[in-house]
Amino acid sequence: MPFQPHTDDIDFILHEVLQAAQPLQALVPFAEVDDDLMRQVVAQAGKFVAQEIAPLQTIGDAVGCQWQDGKVRTPPGFAQAYRAFWQGGWPALACAVEDGGQGLPTVLEAVLYEMLSGANHGWTMAPGLLHGAYECLKHHGSEALRTRYLEKIATGEWLATMCLTEPHAGSDLGLARTKAVLQGDGSYALSGSKIFISGGEHDLTDNIIHLVLARLPDAPPGPKGLSLFLAPKVLPSGQTNTVHCDRIEEKMGLHGSPTCAMRFDHATAWMIGEPNRGLNAMFVMMNAARLHVGLQGIGLLEAAWQMADAYAQERRQMRAPKAVMGSAPDPIAQHPAMRRILQTQRAWIDAGRVLAYRTAIELDLAQHHATAERRQLAQQWCSFVTPVLKAAWTAQAFHGASDCLQVFGGHGYVREWGIEQIVRDARVSMIYEGTNEIQAIDLLVRKVLPDGGTGWHGLLQTLCDGLDAQQPSHALFITQVDALRQVTQDLVEQAPTHPELAYWLAEDYLRAVAVLLLSWAWLQINTAHLRNGSEGVTPRWSEPAQAVDHWVLPELEMRLQIMRARLGLKVPVAC
Amino acid sequence: MPFQPHTDDIDFILHEVLQAAQPLQALVPFAEVDDDLMRQVVAQAGKFVAQEIAPLQTIGDAVGCQWQDGKVRTPPGFAQAYRAFWQGGWPALACAVEDGGQGLPTVLEAVLYEMLSGANHGWTMAPGLLHGAYECLKHHGSEALRTRYLEKIATGEWLATMCLTEPHAGSDLGLARTKAVLQGDGSYALSGSKIFISGGEHDLTDNIIHLVLARLPDAPPGPKGLSLFLAPKVLPSGQTNTVHCDRIEEKMGLHGSPTCAMRFDHATAWMIGEPNRGLNAMFVMMNAARLHVGLQGIGLLEAAWQMADAYAQERRQMRAPKAVMGSAPDPIAQHPAMRRILQTQRAWIDAGRVLAYRTAIELDLAQHHATAERRQLAQQWCSFVTPVLKAAWTAQAFHGASDCLQVFGGHGYVREWGIEQIVRDARVSMIYEGTNEIQAIDLLVRKVLPDGGTGWHGLLQTLCDGLDAQQPSHALFITQVDALRQVTQDLVEQAPTHPELAYWLAEDYLRAVAVLLLSWAWLQINTAHLRNGSEGVTPRWSEPAQAVDHWVLPELEMRLQIMRARLGLKVPVAC
Repeated sequence: MPFQPHTDDIDFILHEVLQAAQPLQALVPFAEVDDDLMRQVVAQAGKFVAQEIAPLQTIGDAVGCQWQDGKVRTPPGFAQAYRAFWQGGWPALACAVEDGGQGLPTVLEAVLYEMLSGANHGWTMAPGLLHGAYECLKHHGSEALRTRYLEKIATGEWLATMCLTEPHAGSDLGLARTKAVLQGDGSYALSGSKIFISGGEHDLTDNIIHLVLARLPDAPPGPKGLSLFLAPKVLPSGQTNTVHCDRIEEKMGLHGSPTCAMRFDHATAWMIGEPNRGLNAMFVMMNAARLHVGLQGIGLLEAAWQMADAYAQERRQMRAPKAVMGSAPDPIAQHPAMRRILQTQRAWIDAGRVLAYRTAIELDLAQHHATAERRQLAQQWCSFVTPVLKAAWTAQAFHGASDCLQVFGGHGYVREWGIEQIVRDARVSMIYEGTNEIQAIDLLVRKVLPDGGTGWHGLLQTLCDGLDAQQPSHALFITQVDALRQVTQDLVEQAPTHPELAYWLAEDYLRAVAVLLLSWAWLQINTAHLRNGSEGVTPRWSEPAQAVDHWVLPELEMRLQIMRARLGLKVPVAC
Repeated sequence: MPFQPHTDDIDFILHEVLQAAQPLQALVPFAEVDDDLMRQVVAQAGKFVAQEIAPLQTIGDAVGCQWQDGKVRTPPGFAQAYRAFWQGGWPALACAVEDGGQGLPTVLEAVLYEMLSGANHGWTMAPGLLHGAYECLKHHGSEALRTRYLEKIATGEWLATMCLTEPHAGSDLGLARTKAVLQGDGSYALSGSKIFISGGEHDLTDNIIHLVLARLPDAPPGPKGLSLFLAPKVLPSGQTNTVHCDRIEEKMGLHGSPTCAMRFDHATAWMIGEPNRGLNAMFVMMNAARLHVGLQGIGLLEAAWQMADAYAQERRQMRAPKAVMGSAPDPIAQHPAMRRILQTQRAWIDAGRVLAYRTAIELDLAQHHATAERRQLAQQWCSFVTPVLKAAWTAQAFHGASDCLQVFGGHGYVREWGIEQIVRDARVSMIYEGTNEIQAIDLLVRKVLPDGGTGWHGLLQTLCDGLDAQQPSHALFITQVDALRQVTQDLVEQAPTHPELAYWLAEDYLRAVAVLLLSWAWLQINTAHLRNGSEGVTPRWSEPAQAVDHWVLPELEMRLQIMRARLGLKVPVAC
């Protein structure tokens, strides 16, 4: 039962809920993009994912990547599938036409990668860093580097890596020690070890382009002494660079993706951007990369849901409590405990799509909108929403997939059913691209608090725009926003005298925002149904909507209470 | 860094918090049991676990059990360790002296199995069913069967299985089809397939005693047509029985334990107990078996905590927010997000011990106390607390171990650190011995509601006994008990007209009770500290106590609110 992209669900979110073509058509590069074109691309993408990528899910886990003498062999079928992927033009979907891309909106790439991740997380890691490397090189690379590498990366003919982590430098990249020494020809010699490098070595493409954080000899200590370098596996001369893959990690899951320990042994490299501004050059792509991980979460949860839903329809155990008289066992899909699990995951998936696709649209608005004001609003949306999507939807992918595993009973624990692979694969998404704890600190400590909450209050206002306080569900949402606003205000006031407080509460704050955003997304979905005049919404949409109210939303008040208690506000303020 | 039993923590719970020797000495079989004896047994058990069992944790996962031609080879070292285990008399710890046992209280066996599970969950599965099989045979077996098998099982010279599940019959055992036909000699011929049989075949002991649920030819359909049979691997004649292991499952984890698909091909068996009363005979051991799984949860979480705590003390990344000036990175154990994770798991582990050890004591009281009234109270405690321990502490083992994995960052996802094994191994404990959803239904639908809440209110009263309403923490607890009482009352009233309601809310109810019990356990711990006159309690105990208040207890109010909303009680009633 391989993963099957449900493109009708995706189309509904894109066109009925977000009306995506409208804001995109207003941007110069996407003037020609309309609903039909988007539907066609999504349909084609879905077909490609179902036919070429989904069937490799099991073998990717069972065989995995194999390391021998510095070479990495990917699982059977992976290389052929990658060839079909780049020759089909999929990596270049949202790259500029002048760079060999198709010039389509980021949101279509987002849909593509969500589906790919659901179908085969391990395989999807390979092209997953391409777009980030493309943006990084496009905006910070010298003309010479761009001429040599940009189109190869845009089209995916060559794959790329990000070499950041070192054994002693994970969340704290400032501790990185890899050295870069200027050579006579203007290139640099890189020396050092990097770990956790996804796709550091493989057999999918002829060349691999490594983006490496390293330190010049005279660089200051800490993160402000890091520069960014490009080191290809194969040099322009055709010679192999001195970049070695010393091993691949044995991991909990994601066996289809080689996690490499890389050694740079006076490797030839060129600087990207300015000396000591390496993090700055990488951070250009951070929102996109984190959105990408959030999309993995959504895709993985969708995959888990599909499996559990299919199983629950088939498997019969006991009478359901609602059953009429009789003795034949009912499908477990009729048992409340199972329905609750399935409907709740559905609620997270659908809301995740609304938020992730909207964020992808905002990424394009941030780059291409005619007015600086709208660009800045878009930037603000991405800045605030992205860490929440990354953290909360990857956590939901893992915990929700585990709940879906539970639907299978003992069978869920057995490999052949496939659901336990999703749980194992999903776990890493809570760690990489900044751990979920780092995301929470990013949101509260680095983004909400520094300007006294001003920018954040602006975003909260955006969420309330267009709501109708006469509608009870809208009014409730506005009340909840006010409650969060109040807690934020108290955090702003107390942070200077209690520097640890925000760090203790960052998780609660992010969770509160996540539930609030989920709630907002479902208001948008429900509004779309009303707009369509569909009074009798099908259970497909009404049941998860109800699950939001019954089982998901109550966490918001709990998180607010946890924060209020720590802030010394014993009495609820706004609810 | 293999698992190290912290017997001082365990001793503190046993003697300072529970004052365990007191109630036990009042029972005839344990009149000689005192603190010193218990401490000695725990110390010896800890030494055995650390020396013999913990070192086999990694190899158990990496090599796993191997099936070939119907035979199962356990991982290297497992058989020697098992030999040391039964020759050391450990399986017989809590079996009666007349059966070859040591006649010690159940609580010491509980401590032993908690430590074993933390050290090596996979290995511990092998003897894990022994005591249940012993009790079942002791209470329901014919004299002939007892003579032949009871001592072998009590001492662990032969291992035992429980053969319940069939491919189409999991949570719903009533669907089981395995047939039993009476033979001329009074034995039965068993025919059918059983799956998920832990230790169905292995190389640890000369014989394996299978307890099998099967159906007589004239049996009524459903659970009331199941009888229990004993089918040994090797017959008394020395011949091998026609019991075949057709395969072992490839699982998410727990590779050290063979999960067997067993085929009974006219296998020779004898009935245990009465015809069609098989479930009844098995349910004798259900509380003990479920307590056992709860203890696995506690042991696994302790193992995860030990790893994460050690890593957090060593690993340095970034300055902690509380740090004084300087630039050297701090141990991540000083970062609030990590402290919160570690303290919260500590809170669950310590409370779990209080509850599990108390339950083990109550199991002995239920069997041996002089008065029927106290026996019944003890039975009530076990009946209500056991499903909560099983469900909530296995869920915490999985989710808490996952949180501990998060402490390791990317390293947590890599096999060599060992923490991901705990997460994978722990996952199954949420499923077997009745899924956690079944536990929740057991608590609310089968135990709390049927007598209108009378028995349950009695237990809640027991929890409040000895509390001092003048102390704010005690007063808060009493208020929370009242709030749960009120919700229970409403459930009792609405259940007849809304038969689905309790099934929808069973999870919330169990979680509310779990948090309440955790809170009660910490009141006991704090009281013990006061009793000891230790005004300045060390951070070892004060930090998790604080974590309970800050991060764990708020869930109780959320669960109550979820239930109130579904019961149509919008306004908090008691808090």
